[in-house]
Amino acid sequence: MNIGILTSGGDAPGLNAVIRGAVRKGIREHGFIFTGIRDGWRGLLEDDMYPLNEVDVRGLSGRGGTILGTSRTHPYSDGGPEQMKKVMAERGLDAIIAIGGEGTLSGAARLANDEGMPVVGVPKTIDNDLDNTDYTFGFDTAAAIATESIDRIRTTADSHHRCMVIEVMGRNVGWIALHAGMAAGAHAVLLPEFPVSYDQITAWVTSAWDRGRAPIVVVAEGFVPAGLDEAVSDKGLDKHGRVRLGGIGEHLAPIIDERTGIETRSVVLGHLQRGGEPTAYDRVLATRLGMASIDIIAQQKWGWMAALSGTSITHVEMSDAVDRLNTVPQERWEEIQILLG
Amino acid sequence: MNIGILTSGGDAPGLNAVIRGAVRKGIREHGFIFTGIRDGWRGLLEDDMYPLNEVDVRGLSGRGGTILGTSRTHPYSDGGPEQMKKVMAERGLDAIIAIGGEGTLSGAARLANDEGMPVVGVPKTIDNDLDNTDYTFGFDTAAAIATESIDRIRTTADSHHRCMVIEVMGRNVGWIALHAGMAAGAHAVLLPEFPVSYDQITAWVTSAWDRGRAPIVVVAEGFVPAGLDEAVSDKGLDKHGRVRLGGIGEHLAPIIDERTGIETRSVVLGHLQRGGEPTAYDRVLATRLGMASIDIIAQQKWGWMAALSGTSITHVEMSDAVDRLNTVPQERWEEIQILLG
Amino acid sequence: MNIGILTSGGDAPGLNAVIRGAVRKGIREHGFIFTGIRDGWRGLLEDDMYPLNEVDVRGLSGRGGTILGTSRTHPYSDGGPEQMKKVMAERGLDAIIAIGGEGTLSGAARLANDEGMPVVGVPKTIDNDLDNTDYTFGFDTAAAIATESIDRIRTTADSHHRCMVIEVMGRNVGWIALHAGMAAGAHAVLLPEFPVSYDQITAWVTSAWDRGRAPIVVVAEGFVPAGLDEAVSDKGLDKHGRVRLGGIGEHLAPIIDERTGIETRSVVLGHLQRGGEPTAYDRVLATRLGMASIDIIAQQKWGWMAALSGTSITHVEMSDAVDRLNTVPQERWEEIQILLG
Amino acid sequence: MNIGILTSGGDAPGLNAVIRGAVRKGIREHGFIFTGIRDGWRGLLEDDMYPLNEVDVRGLSGRGGTILGTSRTHPYSDGGPEQMKKVMAERGLDAIIAIGGEGTLSGAARLANDEGMPVVGVPKTIDNDLDNTDYTFGFDTAAAIATESIDRIRTTADSHHRCMVIEVMGRNVGWIALHAGMAAGAHAVLLPEFPVSYDQITAWVTSAWDRGRAPIVVVAEGFVPAGLDEAVSDKGLDKHGRVRLGGIGEHLAPIIDERTGIETRSVVLGHLQRGGEPTAYDRVLATRLGMASIDIIAQQKWGWMAALSGTSITHVEMSDAVDRLNTVPQERWEEIQILLG
Repeated sequence: MNIGILTSGGDAPGLNAVIRGAVRKGIREHGFIFTGIRDGWRGLLEDDMYPLNEVDVRGLSGRGGTILGTSRTHPYSDGGPEQMKKVMAERGLDAIIAIGGEGTLSGAARLANDEGMPVVGVPKTIDNDLDNTDYTFGFDTAAAIATESIDRIRTTADSHHRCMVIEVMGRNVGWIALHAGMAAGAHAVLLPEFPVSYDQITAWVTSAWDRGRAPIVVVAEGFVPAGLDEAVSDKGLDKHGRVRLGGIGEHLAPIIDERTGIETRSVVLGHLQRGGEPTAYDRVLATRLGMASIDIIAQQKWGWMAALSGTSITHVEMSDAVDRLNTVPQERWEEIQILLG
Repeated sequence: MNIGILTSGGDAPGLNAVIRGAVRKGIREHGFIFTGIRDGWRGLLEDDMYPLNEVDVRGLSGRGGTILGTSRTHPYSDGGPEQMKKVMAERGLDAIIAIGGEGTLSGAARLANDEGMPVVGVPKTIDNDLDNTDYTFGFDTAAAIATESIDRIRTTADSHHRCMVIEVMGRNVGWIALHAGMAAGAHAVLLPEFPVSYDQITAWVTSAWDRGRAPIVVVAEGFVPAGLDEAVSDKGLDKHGRVRLGGIGEHLAPIIDERTGIETRSVVLGHLQRGGEPTAYDRVLATRLGMASIDIIAQQKWGWMAALSGTSITHVEMSDAVDRLNTVPQERWEEIQILLG
Repeated sequence: MNIGILTSGGDAPGLNAVIRGAVRKGIREHGFIFTGIRDGWRGLLEDDMYPLNEVDVRGLSGRGGTILGTSRTHPYSDGGPEQMKKVMAERGLDAIIAIGGEGTLSGAARLANDEGMPVVGVPKTIDNDLDNTDYTFGFDTAAAIATESIDRIRTTADSHHRCMVIEVMGRNVGWIALHAGMAAGAHAVLLPEFPVSYDQITAWVTSAWDRGRAPIVVVAEGFVPAGLDEAVSDKGLDKHGRVRLGGIGEHLAPIIDERTGIETRSVVLGHLQRGGEPTAYDRVLATRLGMASIDIIAQQKWGWMAALSGTSITHVEMSDAVDRLNTVPQERWEEIQILLG
Repeated sequence: MNIGILTSGGDAPGLNAVIRGAVRKGIREHGFIFTGIRDGWRGLLEDDMYPLNEVDVRGLSGRGGTILGTSRTHPYSDGGPEQMKKVMAERGLDAIIAIGGEGTLSGAARLANDEGMPVVGVPKTIDNDLDNTDYTFGFDTAAAIATESIDRIRTTADSHHRCMVIEVMGRNVGWIALHAGMAAGAHAVLLPEFPVSYDQITAWVTSAWDRGRAPIVVVAEGFVPAGLDEAVSDKGLDKHGRVRLGGIGEHLAPIIDERTGIETRSVVLGHLQRGGEPTAYDRVLATRLGMASIDIIAQQKWGWMAALSGTSITHVEMSDAVDRLNTVPQERWEEIQILLG
């Protein structure tokens, strides 16, 4: 069999480890041939690909990024399934491994289920927002980088007796904020799933301050304060009618400053969280998922993806994984609240 | 309630985070009082303890080691349960949180089950050898340090065209070697659970060499080569009658060198793996386990401990966790073999 | 002698190591007594201080921040020298060690030279902008963090075929950008000392792109493009009349994007660069400078500070160190240009 | 001109950055052609080399090891200068850049001075034992790794109330031990240049212990205790006639244990210190040295090498650099002693 492999959507630490795991296992266990598809679905639509040999995946387990390149091209754009089928036929591709997030896996599920294409998936999102898998690779690295960064920033907060607001990734779900906030001992943790009021934020900050601590606020980029008219916020204005400059962190800092009288600064970690070498945890997870994608192909379970359940790698239907967001559950929110303030 | 808390056995990254999680939650949710017991069971036997307040656990989530100190004193030594009951009564201690590995938890289970003492546990082992919990805190950090170290050593192996043998922790189980070996892309991974012959080791090394790679061998300290008379090895001699100087790594290096003709060196990572700041993963796990131990106390489930199952913290009987070693299962061994050579 | 010690101005990795070096040496070699002054000159003006013993400086060599706290209070504010003399007399302080940057050392020089106060200095600036010392502590750590961050961000630039603009600290001098840019192999490095045109920036970016590289632009926060009317830039507008949102990085990214057609994003590293554990290099430098400040006191060289010259710690007059900025010299600028593009 | 470039002797972080700096500058500024010589002098003697283009040195500034490979082959072995001249003539090589330590540079100096060969040098030694240069690349990384490792090990020493002996590199000079010991706040630092007695070591350990600290002893591998008969020590026996198992660390640990009654363990950092990614400091230094080697060639200063003096890169005669070892001077030894105990 000739297996096409592509990485799609935002960069995540561990993509290269997935590729290596799949290619190594496919060649060694099944004698498969591999084709590297450039820049996600774009490469499949535009027939931009090349043979991928064992030598190409050497030393990749710890390397950040993806040797295949990535893009946000949608599989249903520019000719879509018909065009991809044509390219696959011409290239002699027997199956596709699509490594990507919610958008990619939704597309891949439709290609498999509706179009009958031989597509399997490997879930990838640093936000950890996919359902039916305990964690996705890239998340542990992102949480680790965020934690290290908060550790660094905290010493300066202490030296200057300041409150620091650190904005981390997480547009729809707060997993990075939750884990980094718990790991770094933050005094306020703000998640998209659980709007809290300015009063509550102020209370946490003040409580830490009163105990002699420089308050640390970790906020997911998608957090919206309770009471803030979302329509207004979408216009980039806060409730005072001020321009929202650089996201929620920059929004919150002056408000906390004003309400508490504590000098407050914000930092946006941004792209730091999705690049660079994966943690050992993510390397192992990504390698195992890549290897498992070969089992799924060998069993011709089109439309399925590899997933993590406890310590085991399992197979789940992609359509189930993208059915709903993996949000932070109520009990985790309650758990961390005890540590705040 | 007045809760005594102790850490026992070998150091592990995350001990302080457990203490902080338990104390924070106990005080804030239940109004408990805490007593820090020094150096594990020794402090309880000798009445060496002090009040532990919220201020004492500040900033501990990321700090390595244990503020309580640890020792290998066994709870059944020097007066044992009777003496401990006496101290507890005098001190007014209503429950004990024992944070420790197989030995500690076995002892704690007996104290609870046989002596009727109010003891709960939190599992700790960097080796990850405890059953009934997916992972133990400290393991992720140990695997991460081992991985980073192998990454470093590999560049030198490449520059000098050498084979490097890296000995990692794991007396009875090979989890650190398995994860670090997979994460770092080792060419041979040797686990206590699965003896392999010198011929097999040589074959992996030679295969990597023939593909132009400097071979990397990761070996758990408890690995014994198949065919090696254990009695002999216990005498510190290898099968050639040579002195076994510094463990299995130093044993294997000259044998590989001799058999393959490839210059081979060994490195023992040793204590590097059990000290220092915990990873973000271990900080979160340790914090959650510490918090969960308070729930177990509140429910008066003496003899139970906190554990990890998937993404959830659960309660399990300590006697179940220590019943058998959590060894690397056959499927994980098969999984990694595909990547070797 | 009773020595007051204070840290002033922005946080820098190594402040605690200076304090430890000074206190250890002062106590052990001279039997000095130490007084910790809180939050820089503020503590001296307001008599906010406490005895600093050897036990207080334990374990500080590797800890980020400053145990004394810092502020931007100027020594000539609020009563100034007279008030400080009064406090010193009441407290029995015989000398002051002032650890700080250009502003602090200028003030300290005046206090010593004009007011006859017994003040010595230790230079501190992560920007490395002080003259008469080869390097200042904090700079190596800042450059290291910036380098690591660029390494991380680069993998994502590669995966997405993007240009990334990374803004680092350096309001007046470009040392961090120069060193991090060289260490991380950036394709464009933009320094406050050497304005270059948009055309030149675009040329470097395009050249890297044409060789198949995702272009990396490292820009010091104080860089101003040649041809940009500074008056305009000060109003927060760029030459197109657009709002300058978050500094020079955010200014440049859309311009590069527009001119080259390469998708371009920016990241501001900000406070990450001034917090956290110092590098080994900075710990050694800071410790030695702290120790040397005791020699300067013992020799009663008021108005002098410790400095680095080659591998030696020397004594220089503070007024000389702040006379002019330590800017990146022409030869270093020529040196790095060969590597750009 | 066609420039041959080789790396010789032990691996050091920064070798690749030197190669990149030299090749980039040589091509861009002078239009030189480069030839990569494999495995040091061996490749020159055996004519094992290949064209080295700008694309080959991409992304090398931060990569550990050497893409050219290295060996300990001596230039005067196997045909020596005559054979090398023959190969150079056949290959059309106009000059050689030899990157290496004391042995390599001594050889290179003889080749240039005695044989009239067009050879220039770049000094490399993680031990920092070369004279006439402030520091050599690789040293900062080695000291940083050693410092980080001691930080980690210290937490375990604290938890267990143990003394830890950490053996670092440095056969003839103690720079790594000096810097890492100072950076990590060690209680005893033992250098080859300054033999101290068992009594002194014991005194330092006991003093730290009595102040409530877990004693940390950092020892360079080449340290010999005062009073130990070196002839005996060479036989691998200590003064008690016991086998010296794994070096000085393993020698000292039981002696300290016995004399102080404090449980003592040893760790040998070994190869960890010479592999892996260079620090930002070493990347900058190595890049600049590589670039400077091109200036030396352009000026046809055969027998000279690039060196660091303060913040400047200078040119010095290789024969001067290897004339004497760069040992730790008396004042640095006195400086650190104040911090010990």
